[in-house]
Amino acid sequence: MNVTEERLAAVRSLLEQWEVDGIVVTYGDNYRWLSGFTGTNCTLVVTADQALLGTDFRYWEQAERQSPEFELVHMGRGEQFAQFVDLVKMVGGGRLVIEGSHVSIAKFRAWKKECADVEGVAFVARTTTVEGMRMVKTAAEIEMIREAAAITDAVMAQVNDLAKVGMTEKGLAWELEKRMREMGADDMAFDVIVAAGENGALAHHRPSDRPLQEGDSIVIDMGAKLNGYHSDLTRSFHMGENPDDKFWYVYNLVHMAQKNALENMKAGMTGIEIDALARDVIADAGHGDAFGHSLGHGVGLDIHEGPSLSFVSKPKVMAGSVVTVEPGVYLSGWGGVRIEDLVVVTKHGVEFLSHCPKTPIIKM
Amino acid sequence: MNVTEERLAAVRSLLEQWEVDGIVVTYGDNYRWLSGFTGTNCTLVVTADQALLGTDFRYWEQAERQSPEFELVHMGRGEQFAQFVDLVKMVGGGRLVIEGSHVSIAKFRAWKKECADVEGVAFVARTTTVEGMRMVKTAAEIEMIREAAAITDAVMAQVNDLAKVGMTEKGLAWELEKRMREMGADDMAFDVIVAAGENGALAHHRPSDRPLQEGDSIVIDMGAKLNGYHSDLTRSFHMGENPDDKFWYVYNLVHMAQKNALENMKAGMTGIEIDALARDVIADAGHGDAFGHSLGHGVGLDIHEGPSLSFVSKPKVMAGSVVTVEPGVYLSGWGGVRIEDLVVVTKHGVEFLSHCPKTPIIKM
Repeated sequence: MNVTEERLAAVRSLLEQWEVDGIVVTYGDNYRWLSGFTGTNCTLVVTADQALLGTDFRYWEQAERQSPEFELVHMGRGEQFAQFVDLVKMVGGGRLVIEGSHVSIAKFRAWKKECADVEGVAFVARTTTVEGMRMVKTAAEIEMIREAAAITDAVMAQVNDLAKVGMTEKGLAWELEKRMREMGADDMAFDVIVAAGENGALAHHRPSDRPLQEGDSIVIDMGAKLNGYHSDLTRSFHMGENPDDKFWYVYNLVHMAQKNALENMKAGMTGIEIDALARDVIADAGHGDAFGHSLGHGVGLDIHEGPSLSFVSKPKVMAGSVVTVEPGVYLSGWGGVRIEDLVVVTKHGVEFLSHCPKTPIIKM
Repeated sequence: MNVTEERLAAVRSLLEQWEVDGIVVTYGDNYRWLSGFTGTNCTLVVTADQALLGTDFRYWEQAERQSPEFELVHMGRGEQFAQFVDLVKMVGGGRLVIEGSHVSIAKFRAWKKECADVEGVAFVARTTTVEGMRMVKTAAEIEMIREAAAITDAVMAQVNDLAKVGMTEKGLAWELEKRMREMGADDMAFDVIVAAGENGALAHHRPSDRPLQEGDSIVIDMGAKLNGYHSDLTRSFHMGENPDDKFWYVYNLVHMAQKNALENMKAGMTGIEIDALARDVIADAGHGDAFGHSLGHGVGLDIHEGPSLSFVSKPKVMAGSVVTVEPGVYLSGWGGVRIEDLVVVTKHGVEFLSHCPKTPIIKM
């Protein structure tokens, strides 16, 4: 079986478990994962013995090439082409799961209206469908993420040379993006974050015209997107050779918290347990309030996906999950430090996908 | 009244017209337009006499600065912060419109569950809410789009010098993006399209490693994003000084079709009527089938928004709408030509926001 056949089999066993006849998939990352199809318009309908892929004329050739495991259905605006209801009729109706977190109320109503005359069809909205299966990565997926991470590592390693006093946050962010793109990144995984000095305390800062100054702590968070897969990496720096005690105190605290998580986490632990490995170190030092976000999140076709390493996430993390481990300490008026690596969770620990050094000093 | 107060008044008169008590807005472009708030998490609830803006701790300061016309409600995960149900209670429940095209089934169900115990609350999903109001632009919005268009114009005008035989589509796309970013674009309005030779016939081509060759027709479609607003511009080129008759025939046909639309369209015409101004020229020449998309679309906070200039769009286009006018002819195996300008629709015609020359020759 190739990977698409394996995934179809996995979805079909879920359909049995859910006691339904089929599933409708229209969310980009979900249909890409399940079918390999990368166009922007796609409706998959999968049942025990059928697998349909509906798309419009722009993509017919591409769909046949990328998704030969699916029966291509020519869709479009005109009456000569199939509509959603035709896909439903082709599989004989039945109880069909739909992606509750992605299908809008308006679309759901339009679908129900279209199918009003099809006997015995019923839609079952589930909050989590294909996302659940996407958490555990194949070896090929891990290789793609590794490649995206390697670009991010290589460019982050240039920050110590690249950052200069007087350069703005925006200017540095653009230099970093340009280098990642020129190394082959298809796109950024998200807008590059460069947060200098007091801006580092803002968990959601966008690069501004603030110039970098001696004595700043600087948080840089970035990732490359390559072949649909994302990477995610944060390093924190100090502008100048002689950080004061406060910088080293905060930096080392975050570093130790991250180290404790990376050395002790493994598959089978819950998100809460893994999060606590880092959170407890920071809380024990009296700074629990300064770490206001969760320890990490899954990364794959989405930059944020399952599993969640948060203080409210009860499910066990499975081997083969790719996650960020990114504790931070943010002190209003002073700034912040966050250190983030991307790892594969294994039975006995983690395998690193990030290899960028953690050398915070930017020489003047 | 400032612009936010004007928009609040406009929404309130819609609420009367719809015979409801309030509206819930959570879609990015809609809440940005209505409140001025640019954070990534926001729930607005507007009634006849209240205007609430709920967001989490990351944005409290920003929301107070950007949206003083709204009462800020501190939201978050923790129990000490307001939840959706608290916003609903603060306005006293009632019949509340929600954005049917943007709210997922799962979110809708969660909201209904949260509000199950609030007496007299009912949600009314409408397919179009704030989008309808966003179509007609203010002078300030038109200035922002004009600025984004100026960057796009300036870089497109460099194509004749920049494009070289042997350069790949991807390589040229990246050079164009880099120049737009360095001229101040916050981002691309969408991924730059460079489609050379036979690829020009694919309406949805992504730049590939195909090198530019002498004799290619080349379609370039791109736009800058600036301060949240988009621009959109297409020019078609010929690689080399001596296009054959076929290129000139197709180029001039598309050019004449666009000219006919730009010279004769005005506010008060329907999308169908404006589309026909270009479509009839191409159809009369026997190439109606080669123009497979609509003539244009609105541009603003979204790159694709209302009004639609399509052969199925019955509403009248209002003065102050900003739209693309982009006929194309696509011939399988040969390539394509598309020419696109961005204009403001006025009472008597159009005002151009695009000013890039239409000189298709790339010298060798």
